[in-house]
Amino acid sequence: MIKDNPTACILIIGNEILSGKTQDLNTEFLAKELSKLGIKVTEGRTVLDIEDEIIKAVHELRSKCDYVFTTGGIGPTHDDITAKTMAKAFNRDYTLNEEADKILTNFYKENNITPTTHKMAYMPEGVELIRNPDSAAPGFIIENVYVMAGIPYVMHSMFNATKHTLKKGKAILNHAVDIFITESTISRDFEALQQHYPEVEMGSYPFKRRDNWGTTLVLRSSNEREFNKAVDELGKMLNNY
Amino acid sequence: MIKDNPTACILIIGNEILSGKTQDLNTEFLAKELSKLGIKVTEGRTVLDIEDEIIKAVHELRSKCDYVFTTGGIGPTHDDITAKTMAKAFNRDYTLNEEADKILTNFYKENNITPTTHKMAYMPEGVELIRNPDSAAPGFIIENVYVMAGIPYVMHSMFNATKHTLKKGKAILNHAVDIFITESTISRDFEALQQHYPEVEMGSYPFKRRDNWGTTLVLRSSNEREFNKAVDELGKMLNNY
Repeated sequence: MIKDNPTACILIIGNEILSGKTQDLNTEFLAKELSKLGIKVTEGRTVLDIEDEIIKAVHELRSKCDYVFTTGGIGPTHDDITAKTMAKAFNRDYTLNEEADKILTNFYKENNITPTTHKMAYMPEGVELIRNPDSAAPGFIIENVYVMAGIPYVMHSMFNATKHTLKKGKAILNHAVDIFITESTISRDFEALQQHYPEVEMGSYPFKRRDNWGTTLVLRSSNEREFNKAVDELGKMLNNY
Repeated sequence: MIKDNPTACILIIGNEILSGKTQDLNTEFLAKELSKLGIKVTEGRTVLDIEDEIIKAVHELRSKCDYVFTTGGIGPTHDDITAKTMAKAFNRDYTLNEEADKILTNFYKENNITPTTHKMAYMPEGVELIRNPDSAAPGFIIENVYVMAGIPYVMHSMFNATKHTLKKGKAILNHAVDIFITESTISRDFEALQQHYPEVEMGSYPFKRRDNWGTTLVLRSSNEREFNKAVDELGKMLNNY
């Protein structure tokens, strides 16, 4: 399997996801991008904007994974409680970050915004900022937790600004084949292949196109040699159908 | 807020979500449908196809929420370990469910499929089936856990077949307004409104359209009287901008 790679957990913070108002797109983006860096995502969670829930989830996840990426709740309104909550979670003061304040003040001036609050410059003490080339308000890194915006394209700009700081893992190789054979028909052979290559993670995902059932077979591994052999053998196996 | 309603947690099971191969669409669907029934979704999790992870998550979530809905991992291939894992989680035998077996046998006959396994009829002992009008293989209910397929439209057909068994809550009322005012400008007034109506959950979500920043303000509550008053007052507040 993929066992020596760094690991990451994703924590989505926001009532809007759990009410069904908003489709979460951040998990998929982060999962894809982290995979490219050889970082394996091992868990995702979505919690409400409730202090205790966020604190519990952050501590649980950060003890399980090398990195935790959070998205959501760092805006200027009363329901944005992530920054303050992180201060509490890590026993730090929640104070004005002068660097962030400077960035925001310039941004407001340039965009003729008269903010009623400078809340987005308040953060736990002693964090490292995550720049946000798109809309100024920065995220931050606190220990192994990367705190980012919820809006997908703002989060993307933050992730891209910070990904060079992450410890990369061995490339996670990926091979996917679509076949018009049902899972039930192929399951035995596919299981035998998996047993032969324990270092290659094999998944099978049914689909239906124009009323025909098919299956996507996926092989993933960070062991290149075993991966290549398994891909070869899968090809031979499929020739028998 | 929404406090006396039944609660639900969502557990997405599958490597494909955390590898970034597949965008999870099930959380949003379930969140929307459950909201319509007055059931409040309080947490979502996504785990890998790993027995221990699934068992831990199921137990944690089912002690927190009235209902847990799982999706994924009930197909016929080796990576589909959800049914067997649920048997272990609940200390039940993992055995052939005769009712499920009959359904599947008929389906295979009608569709000229020669399965190499009848695995999809194996389940924890003593469960109630969740019918699947779409592709036959049923899900099941074990205590307060609803175990369903991962493919969205199959899961939808299962959810629709079983939703009449759920305890409904008071309707969760929802009001959303889009305004072309930034969150930073409106945050103080909006917070004052929230403080005035603690029984109404108020959220603010920025967006950018054609280079203009705007904000979606969302009010939610199961207290109809307070909700109506808050919606009225929000309208008056926005007239001042």
